[in-house]
Amino acid sequence: MDIFPTTPYLLTPGPVPIPAFVRKAMEKPVMPHRSEEFEAFYEPLLTKLRYLFQTKTGNVTTMAASGTGGVEAAMHSFFQSGEKIAVVSNGKFSKRWSDYGALLHCDVKTLTIDWGQAPDTEQVVSIAKDCKGIVLTHCETSTGVCIDLEEIALALREAYPEIIIIVDAITTVGAVPFYFDTWSIDCAIVASQKALMGPAGICAFALSEHGMKQLTSFHKSDYAHLGNHIEAARKNSYPYTPPLLQLYALEAVLAHIQHQGLPTIWNRTRRASRHFRKVLKAHKGEVFCTSASDSLSVFLFRGQEHAYLKAQWEAAGFIIAGGQEHLAGKVLRISHMGIAANTEMIDSFWENSPISLNK
Amino acid sequence: MDIFPTTPYLLTPGPVPIPAFVRKAMEKPVMPHRSEEFEAFYEPLLTKLRYLFQTKTGNVTTMAASGTGGVEAAMHSFFQSGEKIAVVSNGKFSKRWSDYGALLHCDVKTLTIDWGQAPDTEQVVSIAKDCKGIVLTHCETSTGVCIDLEEIALALREAYPEIIIIVDAITTVGAVPFYFDTWSIDCAIVASQKALMGPAGICAFALSEHGMKQLTSFHKSDYAHLGNHIEAARKNSYPYTPPLLQLYALEAVLAHIQHQGLPTIWNRTRRASRHFRKVLKAHKGEVFCTSASDSLSVFLFRGQEHAYLKAQWEAAGFIIAGGQEHLAGKVLRISHMGIAANTEMIDSFWENSPISLNK
Repeated sequence: MDIFPTTPYLLTPGPVPIPAFVRKAMEKPVMPHRSEEFEAFYEPLLTKLRYLFQTKTGNVTTMAASGTGGVEAAMHSFFQSGEKIAVVSNGKFSKRWSDYGALLHCDVKTLTIDWGQAPDTEQVVSIAKDCKGIVLTHCETSTGVCIDLEEIALALREAYPEIIIIVDAITTVGAVPFYFDTWSIDCAIVASQKALMGPAGICAFALSEHGMKQLTSFHKSDYAHLGNHIEAARKNSYPYTPPLLQLYALEAVLAHIQHQGLPTIWNRTRRASRHFRKVLKAHKGEVFCTSASDSLSVFLFRGQEHAYLKAQWEAAGFIIAGGQEHLAGKVLRISHMGIAANTEMIDSFWENSPISLNK
Repeated sequence: MDIFPTTPYLLTPGPVPIPAFVRKAMEKPVMPHRSEEFEAFYEPLLTKLRYLFQTKTGNVTTMAASGTGGVEAAMHSFFQSGEKIAVVSNGKFSKRWSDYGALLHCDVKTLTIDWGQAPDTEQVVSIAKDCKGIVLTHCETSTGVCIDLEEIALALREAYPEIIIIVDAITTVGAVPFYFDTWSIDCAIVASQKALMGPAGICAFALSEHGMKQLTSFHKSDYAHLGNHIEAARKNSYPYTPPLLQLYALEAVLAHIQHQGLPTIWNRTRRASRHFRKVLKAHKGEVFCTSASDSLSVFLFRGQEHAYLKAQWEAAGFIIAGGQEHLAGKVLRISHMGIAANTEMIDSFWENSPISLNK
């Protein structure tokens, strides 16, 4: 588990490498999906999803889509033309949810914050006034910022008991503490290729009872509507042809997470990020953002050519990601999720650094 | 390739079993998707997709979604509220496209035909009058009907040069003759778990130049819009995190299809369906529909309990599908796609039949 399956080492903050035990799980034969066999497979998977999200709600499900498709499906399932919604935008992905709200012809109140900064809870509560719902990005993968979701969600719930709180938890669930029920979240979305160490292409969701009541009306013929997916999942079924091999992978990872225990995994991620940043500091590097998530590090070296550094690390067998949009060439991004949460690997990364420790 | 990878033999008309060479292709390590390595992988995949669809258009792409998500994405990308569109509905799936048109608030002209029947070309041309587009289901998997797409599409094009012809080719492309360019199709959708013998969860698309011009305006934040996917594919890229392992599978299958040649594969499917139906007739069974597709057989035995027959075949190691909706218990469905296009397998299926040949 702690050994990377292949070189070069893929350390991008999604996709992460797929461990051997997950690959193995995907080797199972295809089963017919309208069958008791599928239901017997899917029911315990859904139960483990509840543990992952830390929820007792029965409303968990999966969908064949990338993370973007998952968050947009959630917004599509809750919001209609003309409705007032709030979005906190502080990076590439959170901006996308604001743009998608506009595409839905919602009246979008966007709290725009500098990339790399986290919002104040008061600002968020203020922008959400009179809104039907709000979309929060727990960790913004383009900058590494992790918002104080607990404080923000509880403050929102206190101020607006009926508000629908949607959380893009793509780069947090399974990596850092996340408590769906305790934090009064209504809909959370996670994608398979981050802390869940699976092949990209599916998402998982949790919905609260309050969220279920607030779903827009739906019809079977509406692939992107969570209502269809939840309704089927309540019968341990999938509304369309399920992405079976990816569900096999997900089941194996969820069993692994449950076996290890979420706190163990959260601590491993935290230890990895702390270790990485300690050595980063010794190399005169900096973390780009405030409120940095433990799931990835977005970092920079003043006066250095980051594209060159990235290429040098790649030549040494370590694939990391560059910055996105206006951060291209200005930062580097590395994952601490899944099997990347490994201090020996991090030591090896720094031993192969193009940045000298003593310069 | 001709040997089934596992028992029991999965003979449902999607998903079909995944051959060993496809499994093998999925074992490759995950690569970062914003890279020259990904582009170098994706470009020849897209070239082979053009061969699959029989098109010279540059507008081919893929999307993480089930087949339903793929067809709905196509409709979402072309049609807007208030626009008049036509849908031919003669089974479970084609009815879904009519329902989805209504969800888009289109003015949907539905040509409803009895399940198991094929539309007359004149009827189709008539219903499509003044419509912006039409959605045709090449093969309706719930009944086995294959429409005369060549005749219908060419008649539509002659009558209405500007009409957008969208084809659900989920159960036909890669199994039976399909000529995107020659038949003047504007958008065709195929899913991975049918003739493409891959894991369920991705779709592939071809769009004509006329279709490209007719796309509704789009924004990066619109996962289900084909415009985003085509725009990225033109740069050999994928707009979101790609479903990489499924693309590995698709690439391997497309290489196989190109190596064998489409006519060889079409003929193999045709031979399998003819052989199956010949033995079916000898067993006093009937094909359910008119204009039966070669990609699957929907069949019945008068006076027999079909759920019992299905269970008996399953006990003998052959998993087939039952009827859907009002056809539940009234018909059985078997695939002739992918590795199911195998006359020895079909002989074995009938040797294990609960229906005696001499009764």
